This record gives sequence, structure tokens and C-alpha cells, in this order.
Amino acid sequence: MENFSTPTLLLNEQIARTNIRRMADKARSRDLRFKPHMKTHQSAAIGKWFREAGAKAITVSSVDMARYFGRHGWDDITIAFPCNIRQLPDINELAQHISLTLLVNSMATARALDDRLSQEVQVYIEIDTGAGRTGLRTTDLPGIRQLIEYFENSSLLHWKGFYSHPGHSYRARSQSEIREIHQTVQTKITNLRNHLAPDYTSLEVCIGDTPCCSVAQNFDGIDAISPGNFVFYDLMQAQIGSCEIKDIATAVVCPVVDTFPHRNELAIYGGAIHFSKEALETEAGRHFGWVASHSPNGWQRTDPPACLKSISQEHGIIHGPAEMIAQYSVGDTLTILPVHSCLTAHLLGTFQLVGSGRQIRQFS
Amino acid sequence: MENFSTPTLLLNEQIARTNIRRMADKARSRDLRFKPHMKTHQSAAIGKWFREAGAKAITVSSVDMARYFGRHGWDDITIAFPCNIRQLPDINELAQHISLTLLVNSMATARALDDRLSQEVQVYIEIDTGAGRTGLRTTDLPGIRQLIEYFENSSLLHWKGFYSHPGHSYRARSQSEIREIHQTVQTKITNLRNHLAPDYTSLEVCIGDTPCCSVAQNFDGIDAISPGNFVFYDLMQAQIGSCEIKDIATAVVCPVVDTFPHRNELAIYGGAIHFSKEALETEAGRHFGWVASHSPNGWQRTDPPACLKSISQEHGIIHGPAEMIAQYSVGDTLTILPVHSCLTAHLLGTFQLVGSGRQIRQFS
Repeated sequence: MENFSTPTLLLNEQIARTNIRRMADKARSRDLRFKPHMKTHQSAAIGKWFREAGAKAITVSSVDMARYFGRHGWDDITIAFPCNIRQLPDINELAQHISLTLLVNSMATARALDDRLSQEVQVYIEIDTGAGRTGLRTTDLPGIRQLIEYFENSSLLHWKGFYSHPGHSYRARSQSEIREIHQTVQTKITNLRNHLAPDYTSLEVCIGDTPCCSVAQNFDGIDAISPGNFVFYDLMQAQIGSCEIKDIATAVVCPVVDTFPHRNELAIYGGAIHFSKEALETEAGRHFGWVASHSPNGWQRTDPPACLKSISQEHGIIHGPAEMIAQYSVGDTLTILPVHSCLTAHLLGTFQLVGSGRQIRQFS
Repeated sequence: MENFSTPTLLLNEQIARTNIRRMADKARSRDLRFKPHMKTHQSAAIGKWFREAGAKAITVSSVDMARYFGRHGWDDITIAFPCNIRQLPDINELAQHISLTLLVNSMATARALDDRLSQEVQVYIEIDTGAGRTGLRTTDLPGIRQLIEYFENSSLLHWKGFYSHPGHSYRARSQSEIREIHQTVQTKITNLRNHLAPDYTSLEVCIGDTPCCSVAQNFDGIDAISPGNFVFYDLMQAQIGSCEIKDIATAVVCPVVDTFPHRNELAIYGGAIHFSKEALETEAGRHFGWVASHSPNGWQRTDPPACLKSISQEHGIIHGPAEMIAQYSVGDTLTILPVHSCLTAHLLGTFQLVGSGRQIRQFS
């Protein structure tokens, strides 16, 4: 850790590749298409690790990200975000070069695309399987049928099925709670399939949350998965029950800039512009990360634990047991596991590979 | 708003310049040195507005930011962050070109600087006037005296006085609460000055929080101010009592990507990577921004109000009254006042000036 002078995002390639391989194997063994989400890492170099594990199609969350991965050799890309018709010129440009799949969730969007698209695209209808964020309710059969019928008459919009991000799995706090949520999602999907069965049988259903994709064993009714966070996991996923701490592939090294033994605290260079303000509610109160130590098998929380108690723009305050705090001096570094690796990676932008020291940059 | 296809940070130059002028006038009228903090905007172009209002010295929060503003003509820069000795090579490089002031809060840091600095620098001791974040307690006279005596014997470290960020003013919820906190800060500073008076009389005290600098009228015992956020203000500052909504100079335009009239909600393109996850606790619950309308006199909250109820990486959900939600269609845009303009500006990186449409970029 001697070379790091500013907050630096570490990535353990071996753990990330193990996470990728485990998910790819799970997809293969259950005959699911594997369309991993790239938003967590946003990096062509890490994208290659997915390709090496067999992925042929990917998922992204923005038109810019689709363009970036398109330039890096991916030719089957789903933008898992309600289609933003203000970016239609960019979408047209993109669809000239790759097989593009969009989420089209309203007649207004469908008509705008039909009017102004110059290229054919694939279309998912996003369904809300309980998260309450975006997509049509699975019980909104008139709305769903109206869209499907519109697509059937469109020469540009080719309907392939349904997409869902069951983000309510993030409220789970154990594997059994995740499995319960997954079952309710499957039930909604099965009911929808049954309603449409007489008319539409060859549709594809893709789901994309890391908790369900990590924990569930039964994927009946589902044809494809597009999880993203699992490549790195993080403390939030460990709290949900999607992973263990040892599965977390990223951590942030921060310089110690001041010590406060009288209050069992350290000040570090590392704040909201490095970690994001995503907080974790734990037995130690609300905080922004655990201090970790590294071993050949991955990171582990220090024992007894110390946390990133508060952050402002660039400051972080570490609170921990007196004996741990006493071990640190100004000029040392310490390593912190992030609460939400997607946001932390987005903010830091560059990964430093543990061991090799090689740097990998994000697209933006 | 017709040209914006992705989340875009708007800046009302006139409001920002008014905010700058008001603070510069206040400093001048009270004989305070004005050393505005650049971390909120991180832009040389906006830095010029401060120069035009009379600022000759500035404050920044990182070595990188100091280097950037140094390249853009500022030659008196304070890095208002506990000196990070792991960046000593960069600090040496910087101190060759500008008059650099560092916060040196520990003997360990002082000794490391004395050993490895190749240039003379100015030094503030940071004092903790109640925020509990960084700096020495004002009652830690032995610690403070030890540092001062060390600096007196150093040929490189020139002690100029004390720096404090009274960040506990962010817990205020009215102007009278801000003034109360400001008085406790002044009392601590006066007591410290009195303790040191027989030996040290010509020291400078600089404080740097937007609430106290905006609201307080009496600055006895204080020689310089370095607020930052006030250039833009934001919803958090309005809630604290530092400003009114009409003083907020930035807002974010976001495309509407889906509508949910049955739950009085809209989905927008605009999430945690645009707004940050800084939340506001209000009478409408915890949220991430108010929907606003623009008038010649600035932005105002829509009436009745609608809020950015939840955000994920790129999704935002707007909740509002049925009649307001009904006015929006897919492909429209709406404008949202940010909770914390520093973090939102850092994330979006580029300002679009209202009216002229001119773009201003941040340094990073």
C-alpha cells in the first residue's frame, strides 16, 4: 500500500473472475441466457473477463455506455432503462452497428420510436414485479397487450419479451427472504405468461437483480439473467445475504491524515466524492464502510470492527476500538470496503489490480 | 429546455454572481480577508467571477484542485484539508509556483514536512470549534503551543494562525440557531486568543462554513472567511436557514422517461450518479430534491410541491400531486433543485449557463 497517495480503488481480479464464473456457470446449468450488466464496472477490460466466461450479450444502463461497449466489440446490447426518446439520434446511430434491445414501456415511447427510428431494434416491455420503480404492473394486461399489438404491427420494433429488475430484493436481510421475494417474482411472471399463453408463447423473460440471481436455485419461467453488482459485490449485498464479505472484490485505500486517540477516531482522505453517500444501517449504527484487512482469500472486516462513521466532500472519519486506532499514524493508509461498489467505482473511475498493480479505467 | 437529452446541470450566472458579490461585500465591510472555497464549483471560469468581485486568495480541498487553480492564475491558495504527507512531492512542486498554505494539525505531520519539504509554506493550525471532525480542540493548549513552538523553530513552516470549519452549523434549522452556533465558535476563538495573547498577537483566524458566513453579522475575533457552498447554495442550505430558495443558482434538468398516473409518479433519467445520494428530511419525508420552475427571479419550488422521492444509479422517481403529474409526458423534461450542490456539481462536471447556453467545465 506504500505507493498510494490519494484514495484508490483496489480490485482483486481473482475474486471478480470467480464471481463472474460462478454466475456464468449457474446460468449455463439452468439454460439461462447470461446478459451481465456492465454498469457496476463500466470498463471494457473487465468486460473481457465476462466474454472469457462465455457471455455473448450484455446489459447497460445508458446510451453512452452502450456506445462505449459497442466500440469494444459487443454487438448484442440491452439498455435496461426506460427508453429515453430525447436520445433518439444517438439510438439510431447505435442501432446501425449493433443488435440493440430497448425497454419500451408506454405507447408514447412506442409511437415516438416508430416515427423517428431509422433502424430496427429489439424491444422488451419492462414489468414491475414488485420493486415499484419502473415498468408496467404484471396485472396491467390491457396495457401490456396494447403494447404487444402495437409492436406486432411495427416494422421497426421487434418485441422479444419482458424485462424486470426485482429491486425489492434489496430490502431482504437473509437468503430465505431473498428466496421468498424471488418466488413472488416467479409467480407474477408465471401468471403473466399464462394470461398471454394462448397468443404468445415464445417470449423471453429476463431478470436482473444480484440478490435473486445470486441466491435463487429455481429459475422456472425465466429465460435470461442480467445481474451486475455481483462482479464486485459490496457491504450492502453482504447485508442482504447475496454474498459473504470474502466475495467482495473491491476496496478503497485511503491515507490517514490525522489521529484522535481521545475519541477513538482517525481522519482519512476519503469522502463523499470517493465512496458516495450510500450508507449502511448496522449494529454499529449508520456508516459508510468497514475497515478491512487483506488476506490471500480476500478482504475481511477487522476484528473488532472499525467503521467509516461519517463523510463530507473529501474527509472521512474512522471510528474503532482504542487498540486499533492506536496502531495508525499520520501517513499510513487503511483499506475500506464500500457500501455500494457500483457508485464507488463510478466515482473513482480507475481500478488498481491487487498484486499486479495494473490500472484499468472506466469509460467516462 | 428542448435541447437537453440527458441530465444537465443548469447554472444561473446572475444568481451566482449576486451570491458572490453579497459575500465579498460582507467581507469587505467587516475588514475580513475573503478567501472563497473553490470546491463547490471546481471551475476556473467561475473562479474568475470571484476575482472580479475582489478575491485575491482562494481555498481548495485537495492538492489536485490547488494545482488546477494555480495553473489558472491564483497564487495564494489554502488547502483546507489536514495535510496529506503522502502527497509531499506534489506539495513541493506546487509550493515552487504559488504561496501555499497548509493545515498542519499534528507533530507527526509537522516533522514530516520539515524533513521533506523543499519549499517554504504558510501554515494554519486547524482548530475544532465544535464540529468534531478534524483539528485540535481549542482547549488543547499544550498541543497547540507545542505546534506553534515547533513552527517558530522551523525555517520552512511559517505559522500564520488558525483555520476552522464550524460544520456543526449544518445541524441548525433557523437563522437564530446559526447565530447561536456562530457565537459559541467566536467564544472558543476568543478564549484561545486570550490564552495565547501574551505571546502571540498577530495571528490570523479563518473560518469557512456557509451558514455562519451567510447569516452572522458580527465577526469579532475572525480575520478571514472561506465559505464555498454559498456561490450556488442548495436545498440543504435553505433548510438550515443560510439562504432562500430563490438564492439557489443551480438545478438539474432531467428527461421524463415514464409516467405512472395511478401512483402520482414519474420516472426520470436522473439518479445517484447525477444528484449524489445526499438526502433531505422534510415534511414530505426523506427525498433527493424538489421539482422547480424557473422565473426571471430564479427557481422556485412548484406549488403544490413535488419531490425526487427515490433514486438508484440512473433512475429517479418523482412523486407529486395528481394534477402536476398529469401535465408531464414521456419526452418532456423537468427541473430539480439539488440537495447538495457541491456533490451534484462534482458528479455532473459541466455547467450549462441559463440564457446563453454557454458551457463551463470543472477541472476533473
